[in-house]
Amino acid sequence: MKKIEHIGIAVKNIESSNTLFSKLFAQSHYKMETVETEGVKTSFFKVGTNKIELLEATHPDSPIAKFIEKKGEGIHHIAFDVDDIESEVKRLISEGFTVLNETPKKGADNKLVVFLHPKTTNGVLIELCQEII
Amino acid sequence: MKKIEHIGIAVKNIESSNTLFSKLFAQSHYKMETVETEGVKTSFFKVGTNKIELLEATHPDSPIAKFIEKKGEGIHHIAFDVDDIESEVKRLISEGFTVLNETPKKGADNKLVVFLHPKTTNGVLIELCQEII
Repeated sequence: MKKIEHIGIAVKNIESSNTLFSKLFAQSHYKMETVETEGVKTSFFKVGTNKIELLEATHPDSPIAKFIEKKGEGIHHIAFDVDDIESEVKRLISEGFTVLNETPKKGADNKLVVFLHPKTTNGVLIELCQEII
Repeated sequence: MKKIEHIGIAVKNIESSNTLFSKLFAQSHYKMETVETEGVKTSFFKVGTNKIELLEATHPDSPIAKFIEKKGEGIHHIAFDVDDIESEVKRLISEGFTVLNETPKKGADNKLVVFLHPKTTNGVLIELCQEII
């Protein structure tokens, strides 16, 4: 894993959170993107070489809606940048980690993504992501 | 804010979590440090230019013990690197954020730290940190 690519934060209202995080970082978000397959509307901020991704549910059955219902707004996942997502997934499975999707899927921000189940990572939802070239 | 300095993860048993995260990152932690004033034992991993800080409570009244009791193990805070923590704190207060300690205090890993209250940051506990030179 090369670095923290981004941290995902679950929010109830992405417009008001855009205003809030713009004040926090003293800069605006640089893009918004909806990923219908994941049931999320996203907004991205740059902080140096890292990013913050705000996530709002697009429907009540979205994983983000369920997360907020259970835990409230807050940090949802950490994403780590990897060079070769398929070999990294194989390595992690061999180390005993449980992956939620063994085959990488298309996520936001032009990435292939795989999630690890929080039950094998001390309650932390971890995303591996690889830039689609 | 220059970058994500580290992400703090609350764990019940730092020794078993050291083993787990060593497998995740394919490398060992590079240091451990106890901060008695905060009631935490910490362990640090490097991931590129970012760090992961595991946090175990040193006593039952530690904020980490209370966090785990309420929410379970998982991501506890995000720390952002700043050049001038005092001016950044002033700026954030003027923007309406609530700080938990207006005067920077000594944290782990040779840092001056200030925390923002999660109630003004969408449920995210944010730490500002500046290297002590």
